[in-house]
Amino acid sequence: MKIDRNAPVGVFDSGVGGLTVAREIMRNLPSEKIVYFGDTARVPYGSKSKETVIRYSRQIIRFLQEQQVKAIVVACNTASAFALDLIKGELEIPVLGVIEPGARVAASETKNKRVGVIGTEGTVGSGIHASYLKRLDKEIQVIGKACPLFVPLVEEGWLHDSLTTEVAFRYLKELQEKDIDTLILGCTHYPLLRSTIREVMGENVRLVNPAYETALELGRLLKEKDLLNTGTKQEKFPYKFYVSDLADKFKDFANSILPYDVEMTKKIDIERY
Amino acid sequence: MKIDRNAPVGVFDSGVGGLTVAREIMRNLPSEKIVYFGDTARVPYGSKSKETVIRYSRQIIRFLQEQQVKAIVVACNTASAFALDLIKGELEIPVLGVIEPGARVAASETKNKRVGVIGTEGTVGSGIHASYLKRLDKEIQVIGKACPLFVPLVEEGWLHDSLTTEVAFRYLKELQEKDIDTLILGCTHYPLLRSTIREVMGENVRLVNPAYETALELGRLLKEKDLLNTGTKQEKFPYKFYVSDLADKFKDFANSILPYDVEMTKKIDIERY
Repeated sequence: MKIDRNAPVGVFDSGVGGLTVAREIMRNLPSEKIVYFGDTARVPYGSKSKETVIRYSRQIIRFLQEQQVKAIVVACNTASAFALDLIKGELEIPVLGVIEPGARVAASETKNKRVGVIGTEGTVGSGIHASYLKRLDKEIQVIGKACPLFVPLVEEGWLHDSLTTEVAFRYLKELQEKDIDTLILGCTHYPLLRSTIREVMGENVRLVNPAYETALELGRLLKEKDLLNTGTKQEKFPYKFYVSDLADKFKDFANSILPYDVEMTKKIDIERY
Repeated sequence: MKIDRNAPVGVFDSGVGGLTVAREIMRNLPSEKIVYFGDTARVPYGSKSKETVIRYSRQIIRFLQEQQVKAIVVACNTASAFALDLIKGELEIPVLGVIEPGARVAASETKNKRVGVIGTEGTVGSGIHASYLKRLDKEIQVIGKACPLFVPLVEEGWLHDSLTTEVAFRYLKELQEKDIDTLILGCTHYPLLRSTIREVMGENVRLVNPAYETALELGRLLKEKDLLNTGTKQEKFPYKFYVSDLADKFKDFANSILPYDVEMTKKIDIERY
């Protein structure tokens, strides 16, 4: 199969969080077009069974294939954990998730081999980061901490806020006491709380943003497969956004975090795929 | 059809919140047995479409009918808003929701005809309380305010906490400024924040707890249909709890709020119904 290098990259998430990954792709691979899908009707994935998350992911991939994407980024930690390996085997185009790129950087950067992972209850409970990290270096100790209020705080828009700092202090105290030197922001919403987390954890802890690492990894992968966009044709709307519910709310959130004005967000019936 | 008056009452919710309704039934109708179902795999309902919520509600009702319940309490605001009218027409046993009992009390208690409603974004956005209240008294002005952080704060267990008070101050300021004299706690989790909401709103605002009003309404309805439990046969386990996911987590939460030690919570496959 010949893949069109000027086709867009498909990015999907259970909701708005994956926009932090789309944002890093926009910043680091500015020639790439993007089709983003946020499953806002069925969010969150974190509390759903593996079977359900696989079924949802397959539906979204069928939709993205209809948009003729050249590669797919699974910008959702839960879907990366549950569905990525399976999906990879079913597709001819490159597919990557957000967990492995973050884990790889954390493993190479930790000095004291004590890595913290914060995420939703589902992600932290799954132990998926630990299993990647141990595969890279079996001496690494992984300390996970679920931070269930972070996502609603971000969605409320309380990003630089004393209240959010207070919540962060409570959640992260345990990780500080366990003397980690590297912390993976294991949920796509968390990079939006980066400055708060930095304030609480101090300058000596390396914060790993898997969104950024995933964008770099995507660049490497596209280059390796000779699929980088040649950027010859300028499009008026290089970024397209689709959701399964509440398109206006999504658009407001997207406009608040993207370095780009979202013109249009379209609601589609994902259950049809 | 002859209904067995000694059969249990079925109570369902999208998750743990409906336990506040079950708790009021336990307190106010101590002879009644309860079968509770919490749809913890598919929570939250607030962001889902009407069609989906109706489909989920019908599945749960088929499960409850298999448990031979004599009446059903829809202890979920979203399911009450979207599915109650339809369900009522499909069943021979009594069915009641949580919105009407709360609205009726609020309409009869307000003096200045300014009623506040707090709830999830879905519930407040639906305007369902306003439509019930206007039907009862068209002069009533309804001021709604979504409080999206309240549910995660309750689920985190931060019930009597300075941080929760600070969040409540932010959310409720607008309602105070609009001079309401009655406030409906329009989400099943919110009665657990009653003392915080009381502290913020002051003693002059009447707080309506629909969970309590629903339990009283259930008592009236059972009496009217001659279905009150005669209480002759003492059961060892008068309360049974079923969920669609994470039974242990549910049990911990239930034990923290019920005046009763939950022995067993069983996970069932609700999609099979």
